[in-house]
Amino acid sequence: METMKVSSSSVPSKVAGALTCLLREHPQVTIQVIGAASLNQAMKAIAIARGYIAPGGQEIYCIPSFYDLTIDNQTITSLRLNIEMHEKLF
Amino acid sequence: METMKVSSSSVPSKVAGALTCLLREHPQVTIQVIGAASLNQAMKAIAIARGYIAPGGQEIYCIPSFYDLTIDNQTITSLRLNIEMHEKLF
Repeated sequence: METMKVSSSSVPSKVAGALTCLLREHPQVTIQVIGAASLNQAMKAIAIARGYIAPGGQEIYCIPSFYDLTIDNQTITSLRLNIEMHEKLF
Repeated sequence: METMKVSSSSVPSKVAGALTCLLREHPQVTIQVIGAASLNQAMKAIAIARGYIAPGGQEIYCIPSFYDLTIDNQTITSLRLNIEMHEKLF
């Protein structure tokens, strides 16, 4: 599984391009974010990427989960987004 | 389709409970958020709600999209999360 890290300064359209590229080669991609601002950029990127893959009849499904991270001996809980691309099912 | 509004001061565990309840009665639920902090609370709530429905072999799928909102004659673009609960497919 491929992992992307998105920060608060990431440009959503560029992340969307990279995500689309990864999803075309791998069935699952994980996006790691720390903080609300990074999550915001990641979710915008997913919304943009949906437009890139929509002409192929595909849809992006996002499943959020928590993960623990240790930075400077402090444990913080952040979000991980599991992204999957599938034919529109629902 | 049911719509929920999540703000930056919403408590994720409570939103998770309400979301689980709605998903058990409706096939699709929409969460509207304005701003990164609200989105953060909503995504935390979805991650928590996954735990509530996991024992039933179900999974929550989230699909973000943009929507335009007019507040005080200003148009702002915000995120809408389409939430669907299905048996674990992938």
